[in-house]
Amino acid sequence: MFSKLILITGNANRPLAEEVSRHAGIPLADIDLFKFSNDESFVKINDNVRGADVFVIQPTCYPVNDNLIDLLIIIDALKRASAQRINCVIPYYAYARSDKKDQPRVPITAKLVADLITIAGAHRVITVDLHADQIQGFFNIPVDHLYAIPTFARYFKSIMPMDDIVVVSPDSGGANRARALAKRLNCTLAIGDKRRSGNEDRAELLNIIGEVNNKTVILFDDIIDTGGSLIKVANALVDKGVKKIYAACTHGVLSGSAVSDLEASPIEKLFITNTIPLSEEKKQCTKIVQLSIAEMLAIAIKKVHIEESISVLFR
Amino acid sequence: MFSKLILITGNANRPLAEEVSRHAGIPLADIDLFKFSNDESFVKINDNVRGADVFVIQPTCYPVNDNLIDLLIIIDALKRASAQRINCVIPYYAYARSDKKDQPRVPITAKLVADLITIAGAHRVITVDLHADQIQGFFNIPVDHLYAIPTFARYFKSIMPMDDIVVVSPDSGGANRARALAKRLNCTLAIGDKRRSGNEDRAELLNIIGEVNNKTVILFDDIIDTGGSLIKVANALVDKGVKKIYAACTHGVLSGSAVSDLEASPIEKLFITNTIPLSEEKKQCTKIVQLSIAEMLAIAIKKVHIEESISVLFR
Amino acid sequence: MFSKLILITGNANRPLAEEVSRHAGIPLADIDLFKFSNDESFVKINDNVRGADVFVIQPTCYPVNDNLIDLLIIIDALKRASAQRINCVIPYYAYARSDKKDQPRVPITAKLVADLITIAGAHRVITVDLHADQIQGFFNIPVDHLYAIPTFARYFKSIMPMDDIVVVSPDSGGANRARALAKRLNCTLAIGDKRRSGNEDRAELLNIIGEVNNKTVILFDDIIDTGGSLIKVANALVDKGVKKIYAACTHGVLSGSAVSDLEASPIEKLFITNTIPLSEEKKQCTKIVQLSIAEMLAIAIKKVHIEESISVLFR
Amino acid sequence: MFSKLILITGNANRPLAEEVSRHAGIPLADIDLFKFSNDESFVKINDNVRGADVFVIQPTCYPVNDNLIDLLIIIDALKRASAQRINCVIPYYAYARSDKKDQPRVPITAKLVADLITIAGAHRVITVDLHADQIQGFFNIPVDHLYAIPTFARYFKSIMPMDDIVVVSPDSGGANRARALAKRLNCTLAIGDKRRSGNEDRAELLNIIGEVNNKTVILFDDIIDTGGSLIKVANALVDKGVKKIYAACTHGVLSGSAVSDLEASPIEKLFITNTIPLSEEKKQCTKIVQLSIAEMLAIAIKKVHIEESISVLFR
Amino acid sequence: MFSKLILITGNANRPLAEEVSRHAGIPLADIDLFKFSNDESFVKINDNVRGADVFVIQPTCYPVNDNLIDLLIIIDALKRASAQRINCVIPYYAYARSDKKDQPRVPITAKLVADLITIAGAHRVITVDLHADQIQGFFNIPVDHLYAIPTFARYFKSIMPMDDIVVVSPDSGGANRARALAKRLNCTLAIGDKRRSGNEDRAELLNIIGEVNNKTVILFDDIIDTGGSLIKVANALVDKGVKKIYAACTHGVLSGSAVSDLEASPIEKLFITNTIPLSEEKKQCTKIVQLSIAEMLAIAIKKVHIEESISVLFR
Amino acid sequence: MFSKLILITGNANRPLAEEVSRHAGIPLADIDLFKFSNDESFVKINDNVRGADVFVIQPTCYPVNDNLIDLLIIIDALKRASAQRINCVIPYYAYARSDKKDQPRVPITAKLVADLITIAGAHRVITVDLHADQIQGFFNIPVDHLYAIPTFARYFKSIMPMDDIVVVSPDSGGANRARALAKRLNCTLAIGDKRRSGNEDRAELLNIIGEVNNKTVILFDDIIDTGGSLIKVANALVDKGVKKIYAACTHGVLSGSAVSDLEASPIEKLFITNTIPLSEEKKQCTKIVQLSIAEMLAIAIKKVHIEESISVLFR
Repeated sequence: MFSKLILITGNANRPLAEEVSRHAGIPLADIDLFKFSNDESFVKINDNVRGADVFVIQPTCYPVNDNLIDLLIIIDALKRASAQRINCVIPYYAYARSDKKDQPRVPITAKLVADLITIAGAHRVITVDLHADQIQGFFNIPVDHLYAIPTFARYFKSIMPMDDIVVVSPDSGGANRARALAKRLNCTLAIGDKRRSGNEDRAELLNIIGEVNNKTVILFDDIIDTGGSLIKVANALVDKGVKKIYAACTHGVLSGSAVSDLEASPIEKLFITNTIPLSEEKKQCTKIVQLSIAEMLAIAIKKVHIEESISVLFR
Repeated sequence: MFSKLILITGNANRPLAEEVSRHAGIPLADIDLFKFSNDESFVKINDNVRGADVFVIQPTCYPVNDNLIDLLIIIDALKRASAQRINCVIPYYAYARSDKKDQPRVPITAKLVADLITIAGAHRVITVDLHADQIQGFFNIPVDHLYAIPTFARYFKSIMPMDDIVVVSPDSGGANRARALAKRLNCTLAIGDKRRSGNEDRAELLNIIGEVNNKTVILFDDIIDTGGSLIKVANALVDKGVKKIYAACTHGVLSGSAVSDLEASPIEKLFITNTIPLSEEKKQCTKIVQLSIAEMLAIAIKKVHIEESISVLFR
Repeated sequence: MFSKLILITGNANRPLAEEVSRHAGIPLADIDLFKFSNDESFVKINDNVRGADVFVIQPTCYPVNDNLIDLLIIIDALKRASAQRINCVIPYYAYARSDKKDQPRVPITAKLVADLITIAGAHRVITVDLHADQIQGFFNIPVDHLYAIPTFARYFKSIMPMDDIVVVSPDSGGANRARALAKRLNCTLAIGDKRRSGNEDRAELLNIIGEVNNKTVILFDDIIDTGGSLIKVANALVDKGVKKIYAACTHGVLSGSAVSDLEASPIEKLFITNTIPLSEEKKQCTKIVQLSIAEMLAIAIKKVHIEESISVLFR
Repeated sequence: MFSKLILITGNANRPLAEEVSRHAGIPLADIDLFKFSNDESFVKINDNVRGADVFVIQPTCYPVNDNLIDLLIIIDALKRASAQRINCVIPYYAYARSDKKDQPRVPITAKLVADLITIAGAHRVITVDLHADQIQGFFNIPVDHLYAIPTFARYFKSIMPMDDIVVVSPDSGGANRARALAKRLNCTLAIGDKRRSGNEDRAELLNIIGEVNNKTVILFDDIIDTGGSLIKVANALVDKGVKKIYAACTHGVLSGSAVSDLEASPIEKLFITNTIPLSEEKKQCTKIVQLSIAEMLAIAIKKVHIEESISVLFR
Repeated sequence: MFSKLILITGNANRPLAEEVSRHAGIPLADIDLFKFSNDESFVKINDNVRGADVFVIQPTCYPVNDNLIDLLIIIDALKRASAQRINCVIPYYAYARSDKKDQPRVPITAKLVADLITIAGAHRVITVDLHADQIQGFFNIPVDHLYAIPTFARYFKSIMPMDDIVVVSPDSGGANRARALAKRLNCTLAIGDKRRSGNEDRAELLNIIGEVNNKTVILFDDIIDTGGSLIKVANALVDKGVKKIYAACTHGVLSGSAVSDLEASPIEKLFITNTIPLSEEKKQCTKIVQLSIAEMLAIAIKKVHIEESISVLFR
Repeated sequence: MFSKLILITGNANRPLAEEVSRHAGIPLADIDLFKFSNDESFVKINDNVRGADVFVIQPTCYPVNDNLIDLLIIIDALKRASAQRINCVIPYYAYARSDKKDQPRVPITAKLVADLITIAGAHRVITVDLHADQIQGFFNIPVDHLYAIPTFARYFKSIMPMDDIVVVSPDSGGANRARALAKRLNCTLAIGDKRRSGNEDRAELLNIIGEVNNKTVILFDDIIDTGGSLIKVANALVDKGVKKIYAACTHGVLSGSAVSDLEASPIEKLFITNTIPLSEEKKQCTKIVQLSIAEMLAIAIKKVHIEESISVLFR
């Protein structure tokens, strides 16, 4: 039993944290968090946290390494300040695609990050739509894995009829994830079979596996980064005679020329969540629709605090 | 630099160990390994192992828990006997499908096993075709991950023309693995979209995504367990008008009624490797063809010992 | 302070767990625990355990390795499910006789098991009559060591006069344990001096040290395994002119031909506890009398939960 | 004994690494190290490192967090690639001033960084002029601490007479360090007594303790950051009637307006080392003289590799 | 939230512990702590400590190693007795000057001690005036660092006018500490510049840096050990024409001939605290004045127990 | 393979270390090891130890805590000085009788000591006749356990006929150890049945179990401490009509009035080894005969260094 819930945000996604705070009815604690002119991060927590159950909201989005180090420094400060339980709320977990040694002499950075968070002193991670479910096993502290798929599914059902929808995974690696959405929407599945090579973002599409002709398509992935491969699949789908293309991705990284490429693409709308904040410029893109996961996070935080099950959220 | 290479086998797959020993030109060390009548495992290593570079060959196949505990006990004995480096050669890594928390309050046993192996005192794992590549990241000791796909690809190219072949993954979770074989064979890909529910082995096939009509099909997966879902996909493929069905799986668990079900199925041949030993009874099944990975293991062990790169084996 | 006590049993000794549950007035939690057809153990806990003080009852009796791995998997599941405190109730601790390196290159499996339990995530062990008290020191988590000797002593005093009793240890290694019972019964002590060799269960009796002629003897040990050495000592005692022979052992492993050998032996009654369940077949043996430690466990569990001393139980 | 020395550089200070490589006669290994467009760092080591004694040159200078994470990722890649010993050469150790809890609820980031480096898998740190010697104790792996003071002392003795020199520490915290240089130069010592408040870089000078009138002064510190406090002390020294002011600092962070402030200050020359690379712009500043520590690092690396003492370098 | 506060004292400073107990209104728990005739320490805690928040008062003063080992043994006993939180109150932390590797092949004993305390099972350290603030970072458990400077400052302000006071640090290493007192007293600072060599206690004074003529001086340091260097600085101050010399040191080690040397020295009074107990003989020295920190410790202990901030004590 | 063997001794038993050095033909390394006047231990190793295989000879005899802390400090210094392997040669392991929790709320100090040695950085322990074999399992680093029993057995066989010898264990806890000597001497066994109570050294003998009338007796134990219980058993043996009494104990602690009590006792000779040094006073006792284990240690050290089995020493 924990007597005091304290909510802290780093600088990674302050709008999300504020929205969570409103939904939870718990104010954000007073902390100083900035960089000295020598580029070192500094944190000072201004409220007493002894014996408290602290939730730190900090996705590791851009700038990735700064946000990650800030998270670790906050954990260290909380540990030394005698917080009783340090829960890291990391809606977007960077480096998640570096989760295996698929080439000789590369790191498994997603595991490294898990070890860094643990050694810094965290007691729990709450996250959303990990690139691979196995990343939960990179931790020996409890990981509460939340899912945006029900949010997407509810939304799609509310805005369009499901009878001619096909969910398309842009590649074979995401087939399972797309299948989960397809199952919730009770519709069929297709898969892009691109064959990429090397570490660069380039990929060459070869084929669409499955029936898409004259269908409305939802391209589904966990992350949209440069968007390059998603758009290539979209173009291939046009060639296959689809009616309309939507895209949905939990984490809107949208790096490089993603937004302008999206504008020029046959994708009509891109649905993302707010795990990563949108820059003012990106907010101008009328193709992007952001769904909020703040209420889900607020409920999860409160349930974790009072030791209630959170699996009920995803039935 | 390690001066002495010692090769040890547990009881899990003695034929494989003996074959590796022959290929490597290194005898198996003398150990006692048995169960007392009270069901406790006992090991005694009869050769001096101080300062040695020891390789323990022990897949965690049936009986799974006994073979796992035996591996841990051997590691403990080697650690206390001052072996310099303890390398675990685990061609088949059990519990690999328990690699994520996909239901509330289940374990991640594949991570637990990694922790057990590490705490016992192992310095390295050498394994073959992990169910999920991410399991490498469950370890902080080096994992040398070997692949049987090149072995399968060479074999298929040698026995049949590739021009009407489709590689089929029995489900969306294995799409990536099947794609890797398809790429090596330069052929197309299809996927079974079955939607299972619960923990039981039962699964209900819904559809085949991709073109298979009048094709020769290679159903490809990492593990064949009861074979139930594989055979259901095979039946669905028959309905779709395929010419011929082969199956290929690295790890031939073949539990329950797998062999008799296979005999009754439309699958013409099942190609497996020898990561798991075949019982005398299973060896009678004329549909099963076993390819050996012993030479690959022998080369990998020798390269690891002399600190040479093993990635060259899979180019 | 822990708000919620949850009682879980593995499959090792369900009758004992049910008896503990009745004594404690606390129901057993709902869990699924079974083996898949591929021989892998699976567990799913169906009740919410967040923040709970969980007691897992699982002696590591036959099948030893399965019960041990099941215990570890349950711990892993509880850890990831955010249980606050995981207490392992292991009335019979297998591998306890592998507690030292008495030969070159053997493991110390009892320590390995302690490390496995700890790394899996346990916070406490409650156990009964460890083969060696030092095994407590194999752990850095608290070990609550309960004793069956008071139970045996009370029972013996209630069923027979103490004036011509000698407690006999079957070997010098158990002399201290036998002396503890002799002290409680206020009677004399004798010791079998057998000199065994090698790892096998065979042993050759040489002598009885101490006066036993015309006495009623209680042969006392912590474990009766095959019973071979106990019965040899019993035969030697007959030669020495004893009146009557009883045997008492906390843990009734009774492996191999123990039961039929017991039937044919001069031992009149064998008193054991229920740390290990008796098969239906063994229950038929009229020489075996089982004393229950369930109430003692129930009291210990409740005292641990409310943070009361349990040493008062053994004054 | 290590058979193979491999030298790797991150992106933090490539010119220094190249100079070390030339002095050591050992080429820099081939690695890829870059950021993906999503801001995640990536590394791939292209040479086999199995069994090698690897030295990674990576000061954690600007951009601090990127260089730190890159270092950790390189370590992780080396660990998983079976490097035998991973030595981190960190000539400038960032966050060194966050070495104590001098306010409530702040982190001790220098310790956190030590823990991160250790958990990633490093076996040794080689560093230069730590802000506090105690940071060595933040590690349990060996730290080879190199000193630039002898380099500075040799240089000063070669360019100017020592008879009217006073070494001045800008504050009481650096008194010990300044005394070490004064002792080597056999000259006197003075100390600036400024009293700062809060976390900001501002500080208010109060006094100069010690005789400086009509002397040539060497202001000495380990780090010059914004240079603010150093310049304030310089101004106070002018008021005290000094003849000439030099400044010497091992680590030239030179953040903010440091260079232009330096140009406008009474400091005639600032001597720094090349632990941190100078931007092209900073190189234009004629007041800055950079001394190289590359040869010292090259010698230290070679001595560490062949297991020779390096303390002889500083007698 | 912790329900039960238990106060335990080792044998190191029983008078201090009793004074803390009186101020806190909490009795000292009943423990046995003595040495067997074989010189081994033994502890037995006679009160139940399950679930308790235990504070162990044990400075590591003379006999240093005995008091340190006793502390570790008490921690071990508490850990195995299921104490919920073990807080070590170590007002004087021995080995604090062994906090860096300032010579080749010496230990960093202050870090070793931190590791020993942590591995034994402590959850927190409460200490007073560490020789170096960085020692906080040697721990990863919370360290509550209390300061005696406010106690000294209040006392000095109450007994003498501040207008002609100079605070003098006996050496450059203590300049920062002396400056902190000078700042609180709003007076000036001077520093002794002695240059010692080797490991022995001897040191040779060279100079006083700063104005002291005709002033009343407070020599300030954290520890007075043999007092040798302090007295040498005092003599040098006499040569510089000071009016009167006081000394103040938090920790009165007073080893060797410290007391008789003090009697013969120009120091008028030595103010110390009671972190270390005074022998009956030392209590006879009329120059020594002991200020008590017991109330400060009592308040800190109670605040830690109820999870309140203790930084308020030092504003 | 280790290139350089370095032999270091602490201050605990310098004569033994010098004897080992002579037998091994390897000089003792040059180290400074002393106490400052403030009672803190200090060590400095004067020879380069980088990459060396270092053996530190330091039994933890009187003064126990000083010798233990000195050992830990030496290990810390070696670790930070980059020794490759740190082997602790601890012929007498203090606190070995605190190896279990036989009362509520006592420590298991023998385990604590094992953890301290391990965390300090040791890689191996070499020890002689541990009080309980299970203490090997308190370590996860290799423990080479040497035995003095063969030395005693050879000696006894060389000085007296074996035909009327009985080996007597002073208590039931040592029965197994006495049996091992009896087996080597091929003679019979008897046991003293004393029943002690509490923590004090007092014990009350009740009986001798086994035949001793008209026999020559060797009282055998691992440690002779105050000798109180040994002498009580000797007196009881006199009452039972023995011819002659010898005593043999590996570790001659001889605390309190042990020597004068021995002089006054019916024990004719006490045979001990030199694991613990004898004071000049104790050396005067003509009843004490010291056997040397130095050559055994020298052989063991050299075998460990060249990675040869040492079990051959005890066949």
